[in-house]
Amino acid sequence: MVLALKPLHEIFKIKRIVVSTYQSVSGAGKDPMDELIDQTKLALNNEKIKSKNFTKQIAFNAIPHIDIFSEDGYTKEEMKMINETKKILDKNINVTATCVRIPVMVSHAESVNVEFEKEYTLEKVVNLLNNADGCKVVNDQRDGGYITQLDAEGKDETFISRIRVDNTNKKAINLWIVSDNLLRGAALNAVEIAEAYIKTKE
Amino acid sequence: MVLALKPLHEIFKIKRIVVSTYQSVSGAGKDPMDELIDQTKLALNNEKIKSKNFTKQIAFNAIPHIDIFSEDGYTKEEMKMINETKKILDKNINVTATCVRIPVMVSHAESVNVEFEKEYTLEKVVNLLNNADGCKVVNDQRDGGYITQLDAEGKDETFISRIRVDNTNKKAINLWIVSDNLLRGAALNAVEIAEAYIKTKE
Repeated sequence: MVLALKPLHEIFKIKRIVVSTYQSVSGAGKDPMDELIDQTKLALNNEKIKSKNFTKQIAFNAIPHIDIFSEDGYTKEEMKMINETKKILDKNINVTATCVRIPVMVSHAESVNVEFEKEYTLEKVVNLLNNADGCKVVNDQRDGGYITQLDAEGKDETFISRIRVDNTNKKAINLWIVSDNLLRGAALNAVEIAEAYIKTKE
Repeated sequence: MVLALKPLHEIFKIKRIVVSTYQSVSGAGKDPMDELIDQTKLALNNEKIKSKNFTKQIAFNAIPHIDIFSEDGYTKEEMKMINETKKILDKNINVTATCVRIPVMVSHAESVNVEFEKEYTLEKVVNLLNNADGCKVVNDQRDGGYITQLDAEGKDETFISRIRVDNTNKKAINLWIVSDNLLRGAALNAVEIAEAYIKTKE
């Protein structure tokens, strides 16, 4: 999310973000991926399902809970989204998050409502995102003219779709952001951090 | 959604709603339900998948698109949520929506951020929701202490979970709302409308 929001924050200054996630099971590891497959087979055969890596059945279901609960009712995953956005982008950005696990193998998707301090135009947002490192806009307002998690699997880019002016606030925007969490969240990030580190040493 | 928000609007007056949905395939009909099953079997066998009722593969995927696109980039389903909330609750309520289909058979879930005009307390919200017709709060901040779509299947109630003070705005709240769309959205609504109609005629 921050990769797509950074170029927008630099120009329009982000005030507040409301985000709901659609996170794949691979974010939880290899065993949860196997469990989704196993549970799905059992569900198709109407057999009894037990959950090991999830608190409830994940096959053909969505679980609004990732990582442990904190006292105020937010989960650690939700707090991480809030705190990491502040740490990476700007401590003055307010973020509220709801993190949900869905029965998808790889890639995370996010429905993001972003409120800017400054006025923006859709044209400028699309241009900024298309020119941002690692970002790609796929935003045709027609059948299939958007990115899904399966589309993003195995790709390095963070994809941005469903770009719309928020109909309740002309300084806000709705976005659908998708990236391969195994590449973007882990391996690719490690490579990029290593490259940046090497550069500072040269 | 409106069933859960009505009692809150009456007391705290809702200003703005940001909603992201997690909608089951049964909302699209019987054929799409069969297609999810068929696609899932093919995916498990690594066989080629063709989509008929969806614009992209729905098995192990999420599609940020329900019903046709309008010119401003919103889908008809998103406009319906905006307009029906205004029509049923109050025309002054601002709603912005992102509607997403996920690989779940029955029940719709929604991640809802609601901004009130008045100050509220979590205790009052829980009380209002628990006493509202057709609503049930399941809000334990622990593993499994929330409703999922599978849990709501076959039940008449609209369930409300993950009730949290919005950490960016003390007059706003985050909710996870789930109901069986086949009962609540269709058959049960028809029964209730018929009953109300009979009462007015008596």
